[in-house]
Amino acid sequence: MGGQATDVSLQDIQRPVAPQLDLVVAELRRIVAADFPVIANANDHLLRMKGKLFRPTLLLLSHQATGGADQRIVRLAAVVELIHLATLVHDDSVDHSALRRGMPTLNALFSHQVAVIMGDYLYSRAIIELVKLEDLVPLQIFARVTNEMTIGEMRQLEAHDKLAYTEEQYDLLIRAKTASLLSGACETGGLLAGGQMRAALARYGLFLGMAFQITDDLLDYTQTEAITGKPSGLDLREHKVTLPLIAALPRLAPAERRIVAQLMDTPEPPDAMVAEVVRFVETAGGLAYARERALTLAQQAEAAVDELPPTAAREALRDSIVYAVERRS
Amino acid sequence: MGGQATDVSLQDIQRPVAPQLDLVVAELRRIVAADFPVIANANDHLLRMKGKLFRPTLLLLSHQATGGADQRIVRLAAVVELIHLATLVHDDSVDHSALRRGMPTLNALFSHQVAVIMGDYLYSRAIIELVKLEDLVPLQIFARVTNEMTIGEMRQLEAHDKLAYTEEQYDLLIRAKTASLLSGACETGGLLAGGQMRAALARYGLFLGMAFQITDDLLDYTQTEAITGKPSGLDLREHKVTLPLIAALPRLAPAERRIVAQLMDTPEPPDAMVAEVVRFVETAGGLAYARERALTLAQQAEAAVDELPPTAAREALRDSIVYAVERRS
Repeated sequence: MGGQATDVSLQDIQRPVAPQLDLVVAELRRIVAADFPVIANANDHLLRMKGKLFRPTLLLLSHQATGGADQRIVRLAAVVELIHLATLVHDDSVDHSALRRGMPTLNALFSHQVAVIMGDYLYSRAIIELVKLEDLVPLQIFARVTNEMTIGEMRQLEAHDKLAYTEEQYDLLIRAKTASLLSGACETGGLLAGGQMRAALARYGLFLGMAFQITDDLLDYTQTEAITGKPSGLDLREHKVTLPLIAALPRLAPAERRIVAQLMDTPEPPDAMVAEVVRFVETAGGLAYARERALTLAQQAEAAVDELPPTAAREALRDSIVYAVERRS
Repeated sequence: MGGQATDVSLQDIQRPVAPQLDLVVAELRRIVAADFPVIANANDHLLRMKGKLFRPTLLLLSHQATGGADQRIVRLAAVVELIHLATLVHDDSVDHSALRRGMPTLNALFSHQVAVIMGDYLYSRAIIELVKLEDLVPLQIFARVTNEMTIGEMRQLEAHDKLAYTEEQYDLLIRAKTASLLSGACETGGLLAGGQMRAALARYGLFLGMAFQITDDLLDYTQTEAITGKPSGLDLREHKVTLPLIAALPRLAPAERRIVAQLMDTPEPPDAMVAEVVRFVETAGGLAYARERALTLAQQAEAAVDELPPTAAREALRDSIVYAVERRS
């Protein structure tokens, strides 16, 4: 770690569980399958925009790192991706987002209505699969996590007094919105090992998830649309206050703060205004602060995963931390 | 039954389980409780617009009618109402409805975003409660039912060629949308008895639920806003094709069919046009056909419930059928 740009690819991380990840995709396809035409079409679209399977990767690596060889693990890995997908579908609908991973969202391609119902469809399918495993513990973890995620979503909506939004509120938001599911994925992977290993993996996932989200929020300030698949400065455009701005605000001059306030009051802030605020935030050290915070969390994640015995899977979990904080998209 | 207007009040039906129903409301309040202000406010609003608790009533009566005295039944009854509430919240959001039970919907009072997230919040809370009961069977029933309900919602969106919509499609829709949860409620009530009683209650709930929904669709043709709490002819206004219209269509004169087609092509059909189609449907016997179908289903529900031993609770279940098909709102 230590800030140097180690180049870790997701492919490297996924190597120890690559054969299982192929099965996860097939399993996902089986679980969501539907006769009904709209649902089948929406499924096809979602499976085409299939992401990096980061959450199933973490679940499978956590399982392998704790010596597990449970046949059910592929289904659990598919379920965690399915819950993630269901959440994305509702998030995009709530945010009226038009693009996700460079492809149209369900609400853009079909309709807002279809997106709301599809999210419910995917989530209830995930529960059905969990029930079939006849084990209450994964159900307990994922029910808690999905409830936390809804509270995170509500926190996101609810930042009324934008300029008074604190780092503490931001922490609660990213824990609930992002870190809870990553933590739940790792914890589920460690279920068979139980006890301290399970707890260490849950902690690892929590710190990793927070570092991952801070990095995401940083990328929104630093990356261009061509790389991330969504417009840059989007958070500011949508009046979302993230860590770089929270850290920069107390250090801004009164005139600069007024421009930030003006942006937050402008329904569709022009590019020049967004670019100006991005510059203020960078100059005031907001990006550097957020990077530092992500690295501290990365170290905490590392300390947690180091409680596991040394294996190739554990090394891949360590590399996942580097990936989470150093990625470019 | 037999078509005569027996006056059965919901209060009569609820008498055998009245003390438990009070506990259900307290339990519901406990399950949804949240610190977070928006969620707490949305909860208060939802609990104020609390409906008739028809689904918890059916669950509790089914339990009592099969000799059950399980302490967990109150929690299960609260969960079935919670799932119903979560569904209503998303339905209103999908339909852009402004009123429910004469009160503003969450999407109208807060926002569309809050409604989507609140639906997810309530549903995940329901799953958490089910998991706490440490019994996979109710989870299995409710996971299946909620998934069926999403398919029903999708069917509702998807009636593209309005005038070609068949009674078979309508049956599939009302089974999935309405009858599945009523059936699941009754089946859950009969879990301890198991075997044939459980199956009889599931069938009873299915027929009752279909009769209930057909009656709902009839009320949309016959009742005024003052009684139902929503504008009359709303389904036609929203281009929803229900049984009265499906039954009437083949019997309409070509000129009348053209007016129906015109209504379906008019984004906001004027009152006079809606009133005209209501008249056609009535004259062609569409309302009479739907009433007849509801009564047949009511008889099937009666036959199913008669498989249970005679008790006060069974009589209340029989009365629920009369209530479902004879109610005025």
